[in-house]
Amino acid sequence: MSVTIEKLRERLAQIYDLQAVEELLGWDQQTQMPRDGAAGRAEATATIARIAHERFTSAETGELLAAAAGELENGDPSSDDAVIVRKTKADYRRATTVPDDLAAELARAASAGEDAWVAARAENDFQAFAPYLQHNIELAREYVDCVKTTGDYDSAYDALLDGYDRGMRTATVQALFSELRDALVPLIAELRDRSLPGTELLAAPFAVADQRRLVAQVLARMGFDAASWRIDDTIHPFETSFGLSDVRITTRYAEDYFPTALFGVMHEAGHGLYCAGVAPELARTPLADLDSLVLHESQSRLWENMVGRSRAFSEWLAPRAAALGGGALAGLDAGTLFRSVNKVTPSLIRIEADETTYALHIVLRFELEQELVEGRLAVADLPQVWAERMRSYLGVEVGSDADGVMQDVHWSSGLIGYFPTYALGTLVSGQLWQRLRAELPDLDAELARGELGGAREWLGENVYRLGSRYTSQELVARVCGGPIAVAPFVDYLKAKLTDVYGVAL
Amino acid sequence: MSVTIEKLRERLAQIYDLQAVEELLGWDQQTQMPRDGAAGRAEATATIARIAHERFTSAETGELLAAAAGELENGDPSSDDAVIVRKTKADYRRATTVPDDLAAELARAASAGEDAWVAARAENDFQAFAPYLQHNIELAREYVDCVKTTGDYDSAYDALLDGYDRGMRTATVQALFSELRDALVPLIAELRDRSLPGTELLAAPFAVADQRRLVAQVLARMGFDAASWRIDDTIHPFETSFGLSDVRITTRYAEDYFPTALFGVMHEAGHGLYCAGVAPELARTPLADLDSLVLHESQSRLWENMVGRSRAFSEWLAPRAAALGGGALAGLDAGTLFRSVNKVTPSLIRIEADETTYALHIVLRFELEQELVEGRLAVADLPQVWAERMRSYLGVEVGSDADGVMQDVHWSSGLIGYFPTYALGTLVSGQLWQRLRAELPDLDAELARGELGGAREWLGENVYRLGSRYTSQELVARVCGGPIAVAPFVDYLKAKLTDVYGVAL
Repeated sequence: MSVTIEKLRERLAQIYDLQAVEELLGWDQQTQMPRDGAAGRAEATATIARIAHERFTSAETGELLAAAAGELENGDPSSDDAVIVRKTKADYRRATTVPDDLAAELARAASAGEDAWVAARAENDFQAFAPYLQHNIELAREYVDCVKTTGDYDSAYDALLDGYDRGMRTATVQALFSELRDALVPLIAELRDRSLPGTELLAAPFAVADQRRLVAQVLARMGFDAASWRIDDTIHPFETSFGLSDVRITTRYAEDYFPTALFGVMHEAGHGLYCAGVAPELARTPLADLDSLVLHESQSRLWENMVGRSRAFSEWLAPRAAALGGGALAGLDAGTLFRSVNKVTPSLIRIEADETTYALHIVLRFELEQELVEGRLAVADLPQVWAERMRSYLGVEVGSDADGVMQDVHWSSGLIGYFPTYALGTLVSGQLWQRLRAELPDLDAELARGELGGAREWLGENVYRLGSRYTSQELVARVCGGPIAVAPFVDYLKAKLTDVYGVAL
Repeated sequence: MSVTIEKLRERLAQIYDLQAVEELLGWDQQTQMPRDGAAGRAEATATIARIAHERFTSAETGELLAAAAGELENGDPSSDDAVIVRKTKADYRRATTVPDDLAAELARAASAGEDAWVAARAENDFQAFAPYLQHNIELAREYVDCVKTTGDYDSAYDALLDGYDRGMRTATVQALFSELRDALVPLIAELRDRSLPGTELLAAPFAVADQRRLVAQVLARMGFDAASWRIDDTIHPFETSFGLSDVRITTRYAEDYFPTALFGVMHEAGHGLYCAGVAPELARTPLADLDSLVLHESQSRLWENMVGRSRAFSEWLAPRAAALGGGALAGLDAGTLFRSVNKVTPSLIRIEADETTYALHIVLRFELEQELVEGRLAVADLPQVWAERMRSYLGVEVGSDADGVMQDVHWSSGLIGYFPTYALGTLVSGQLWQRLRAELPDLDAELARGELGGAREWLGENVYRLGSRYTSQELVARVCGGPIAVAPFVDYLKAKLTDVYGVAL
């Protein structure tokens, strides 16, 4: 390795460390920190973020990147170093267009907006929240003005989207979401009023201590190893990791609905497997920074829904849930569990939505945030438009803004352009699942025995070990032989729902 | 506030944040981190330490300090800003004399030395450890060569000592320790073979869950508030804090000797009260960086020994320990508790030593580390000299190097000059205790009722709120009206032991 490459790698490794430290500060804040530590923590987090930004955007980083690019010009363009330099140059170009003052104001407004959101949501007071949202939208536009020359963007929203999934474009998302919506709306209409006898059983009490045992069994099957993983309780579940050998997930338990914790844990552990599965030689490089939220979400949803909520895995899961749950749950069988956790029930809250209706919550947010950024929708009109579109897409009535436009944290903290990655991840999970099933013909039998190693290894080989070497679109092309597509997910879903409801779809 | 002062304060606040983050990384590593996270954590910690050092020793910091000193020249020399600038200039001068390469090698050797020590101690293999110790001593000498011009040092050891307690000098310590040793040796000889009937009771089993309840009661009395404190289990107890409102202590429990946890917690909580009690306006300034290890240790030992092991507090503690311990402990009375936890029993291990013999363990280490640094003692001869001096000072026979020269982590990680602060802290605690008792005439009655607020408030006013504004010697002069002295501690100890043993001393 040349001295230049070595210096560049060391510099980027330090930036990786700073990002890991920032993650740890957040994890500690949400799981361990005494309440009054918040003010000091905010300062410490801001300091680390500022230093990471300063070091990344410094002239020295730019010079090392330019020198490294020159050295690698005639080498193998697919070498790790070549990929690292290309990817980092693009990130550097983008980051250096944002003045320090704007970066600081984005961070400050995110923090202030989130605080305001917590209070306004508790009071169901959209008026109190609106100015913060307005400010975040204005800042997003300012941000776009800075970065718009750093990519081939057709719109302001393109530039935002690119920050959450490199190379993703609004037109692509629009085409996919339009096809997805057209497939889901009639499916939901067909199924929403059908009853599924016996599914009310899952609301039976299940002691939290026993749910923890069930969760531990599932995690052990997924590959959770106490030497490099941990799980904690939080109000809002999440996954984070510091390097490849320190993966932390969190969850919350509902005494009267055990799937909340169980599938929540499978979701977060799906994120965790991706982080833990990056090739060790990529540690502390930008390729271990898993920056495609589409790929990240494809893993969480694949494990949560395609594995966790499958009929096959229900065969393994149901008797264990029955034994640990006891009481009314002692009679739980695989069929009932499978039907219950796949029931189609349009509802108000995204994070509680079933697999079928979930994507429509995302389509709605994708549309609204574009209209907000482009000035076609005023913040003041948002609650009304939200209610109308919820009625139109899901046929549900929004009772309060707290359960409507204020239900999610994202916009309050300036995350605009983030939402579509959830549904795009779902589509990618459908494509990967289709491919994985084709290559692992015994998969159902394995899942029914609780053997998850085959699926994990296939994903490790085809996705995890690569880190962020490929964009979501490149990875799908490589593994599935085409662009991101709707059909595999919809086909999978129809087949599952046919099984759940016993009707041809 | 001038622009210069504001800029300097912001820069120093960021360095404070980086140090707090480094502390958090350490706390997490010892209490939460999955085992395999160690390699990544070492890198992250090194990165934060490197950045903190770079920023502190940068030309920009130097220029801000010089400009600030100029602006403050004709102002009040006791203003916060004036104290901050004076103190930081001295620290800056010292830190900038150490080349980055040496700083990095000190950190690397500390880490490698500690690893080697863990392994060598487990195998009782001093030969395996000796080269690491030798290297640390050589590095300490190199370090001294760098910093020797930054203070009025008479010896290499002076320069080391100054790093753990500003202004402390070898000659001062020698005079104090000589007087202390001369007072303790005959006291120990007089008491070591006296029996104290009933004291074996404390070895009765005490369920850990119930010990936790007892600890929680004591902590609540000391001022532990879950909004800003937490307590965790670790193998090696410690205290750390991030700002003034996030204080974390750790402890370990011995099922068959509850004082281990109980007084260990009072010790660590004593450190914590000091951190939590710094005046809020000093937050994120160098005055909130409590860098006098003598003052820090004076607080831990005061709470552990002078409060915790007092006859008065035993009145409150004994019935609670009896009720929670149950079994044989149900009969525990205040007198038995008081006598048991103050019994004089010369032993091999410093951290298990009683209050009376403890200081002799320190005197021995102080002598040996001076001789090592000055080349008057060879590393190879250390085990033999250690054994001889343990026999001479404490009358105990060293059975193995693991329980002898390798019992402490300090030298393995390059902490040379640190040990004396433990016994100096003990002396200062004696002086503060004398003063506090004089000003709080009802103290014993309060302690017997478990009321610790009076002592805490006095210490808060006279010590904690000041942060690191004064050196240990300045603070003692200010509060107690004289230099650090031996007599108050020895007088206190004799009075206590007279009560314990029922003999005139």
